[in-house]
Amino acid sequence: MSRVMNFNAGPAALPLAALERAREELLDFEGSGMSVMEHSHRGKVYEKVHREATALVAKHLGTPLDTWDVLFVQGGASQMFAQIPLNFLPAGATADFVVNGAWGEKAVAEAKTIKAVGGGEPHVAHTTKNADKSFTRVSKQDEIKPSKGAAYFHLTSNETIHGLEYALGPETPFPTTEAGVPVVIDMSSDILGRRIAASKLDLIYAGAQKNIGPSGVTIVAIKKELTAKGRKDIPTIFQYRTAAENQSLYNTPPTFGIYLVRNTLTWLDSIGGVEGVEARNRQKAKALYDAIDGSGGFYKCPVDVPSRSIMNVVWRCPTEALEETFVKEATAAKMIGLKGHRATGGVRASIYNAVEPAWCDALASFMKEFAKKNG
Amino acid sequence: MSRVMNFNAGPAALPLAALERAREELLDFEGSGMSVMEHSHRGKVYEKVHREATALVAKHLGTPLDTWDVLFVQGGASQMFAQIPLNFLPAGATADFVVNGAWGEKAVAEAKTIKAVGGGEPHVAHTTKNADKSFTRVSKQDEIKPSKGAAYFHLTSNETIHGLEYALGPETPFPTTEAGVPVVIDMSSDILGRRIAASKLDLIYAGAQKNIGPSGVTIVAIKKELTAKGRKDIPTIFQYRTAAENQSLYNTPPTFGIYLVRNTLTWLDSIGGVEGVEARNRQKAKALYDAIDGSGGFYKCPVDVPSRSIMNVVWRCPTEALEETFVKEATAAKMIGLKGHRATGGVRASIYNAVEPAWCDALASFMKEFAKKNG
Repeated sequence: MSRVMNFNAGPAALPLAALERAREELLDFEGSGMSVMEHSHRGKVYEKVHREATALVAKHLGTPLDTWDVLFVQGGASQMFAQIPLNFLPAGATADFVVNGAWGEKAVAEAKTIKAVGGGEPHVAHTTKNADKSFTRVSKQDEIKPSKGAAYFHLTSNETIHGLEYALGPETPFPTTEAGVPVVIDMSSDILGRRIAASKLDLIYAGAQKNIGPSGVTIVAIKKELTAKGRKDIPTIFQYRTAAENQSLYNTPPTFGIYLVRNTLTWLDSIGGVEGVEARNRQKAKALYDAIDGSGGFYKCPVDVPSRSIMNVVWRCPTEALEETFVKEATAAKMIGLKGHRATGGVRASIYNAVEPAWCDALASFMKEFAKKNG
Repeated sequence: MSRVMNFNAGPAALPLAALERAREELLDFEGSGMSVMEHSHRGKVYEKVHREATALVAKHLGTPLDTWDVLFVQGGASQMFAQIPLNFLPAGATADFVVNGAWGEKAVAEAKTIKAVGGGEPHVAHTTKNADKSFTRVSKQDEIKPSKGAAYFHLTSNETIHGLEYALGPETPFPTTEAGVPVVIDMSSDILGRRIAASKLDLIYAGAQKNIGPSGVTIVAIKKELTAKGRKDIPTIFQYRTAAENQSLYNTPPTFGIYLVRNTLTWLDSIGGVEGVEARNRQKAKALYDAIDGSGGFYKCPVDVPSRSIMNVVWRCPTEALEETFVKEATAAKMIGLKGHRATGGVRASIYNAVEPAWCDALASFMKEFAKKNG
């Protein structure tokens, strides 16, 4: 077996250790004589995995289970774009959205549909959309114009397609709005990829398929006091309190996906947790940005330096034809998934947690060679 | 490795061939150097699996893709309990529900919440609930009192907890309502377990985790003309037309789950498709019902004979203490998952497609021995 260097934007590379563990016990989980996915979600064997996965997310995210509900739900961030306003944006109210890319735009578009189902309306408090529809930076605190008494404030911490992110370190203040307004953050593409000050947030959500598991599992961490404030007249299954009151076991959860999240976060533990992986991720990103910046203008990253993502590194080659050749030759060298998003073109390397530093070094070397050959 | 005889109610046994195939290629799918779950859902490698799974469901269900939308969505039947009325039960309208067990009751309860999100109201057209809250048979055609001009008619074809089912064979007329009223059927626990006359139906839905795959994948087959009639003012992600227009790739689907559905239905092909598995399933059910009926009254099946399920066989022992002993001794003999649902007590053997006939024979023998020893 020869594994490739996987730079896919999501679903993406998983840690080899997590996959090997899954393969090892796929037909017989812990001597039970069946696969973990053949176990009842109400049985002790699966329940242990479920609790462990919940505890690992809570630990690494910094959202302790006494004050936070840490939930496994379904539908991806796309469903949360509807479900969050359905819960927390009641009729007559407004929620503030900062828009720095395609995912922020999608979140607003879906929030606009909530009025027809008995809810309120979104307000774009700031966008960094350029005249040519591109996005090349995140918003600054003083640009954001919050509405009065917003139901919540929504932010996309990392824009996968455009390769830009907010600095969200424990020492870096979040873009904030009025005191007391809950902060809701879409971390689909950077969850557990770097440290954050979770205590300053109120709701964190993410599809698992980039940093922490396979597709089909969605993580939602909500401060318990916010969970309690959700609408009670919407369908039971869409109320976050339903999942919270049932430890994500109201109905059958995606058990195998949650098991793989468990495996992935156990691996995360083994490399030093979020602090360890953040150092790795910064080193990986640096290798690529150095290759771009050191190329004498052959490669160009369209993103303003302070907004550059450490998860999705995007760049352009001198021509689209060269971009095509780049991706083709990289693929031949076993570096997969480098084609930029269809909306932006260019090249993109998604370097989530499970992407090995050695792969980024190999890619940086390849970039240097390619620039020399074609420059 | 020693595999057990798995009679779990769901998640449940999967075909060994489907699991072995998954294990074989878990780290390197078709020579691509990565797991199928590490592939982009927009790449050719996964797309082939996705299309194959869709085509297999359509073929086995008898819902051709020129007139039906066959969708993979998320959230399980529990989410469909909300999402179906959200789409197809508009304000001012009524939908008829026939209630023959806990799942039918849940479907009604969730449909009642739709009024608050701009929808109509459910009407219970008939229930077979007994005075003691048990369910021991399905409804008869002449008992059902449909409302005038209902938006749709809803039926649960097999009640997992109570072990009862509708005869739905191609020659058996469905309970129907007024001409032109769409028939919506929850087949979570019997999908592809027996032949049905799909052409008489308009929407078929099911969680995958009983008969056709792992949890986390939900199948929805809808006649295209019904899809088109759905509400357009609800969130995009909840409109079935969104999944239909995007071949279930509007957002990232649960790729590994869909891959396992593909493996499971390929196995179904190998044993003669739905016709083949139905014969197997009837033989399996007969072995158990014969053991009950031939026990001289030691075992009692509470379900009326014409309503007996071929997927979930339920019975009582003379005392609750004996039921406990039965389950304990069966577990020791490697027959797992036989405890009845907490709502009903008793014993239940769920004998979905992947449950081997030999396991049912072994269970029937065990039942005879146990009755002899304790009778």
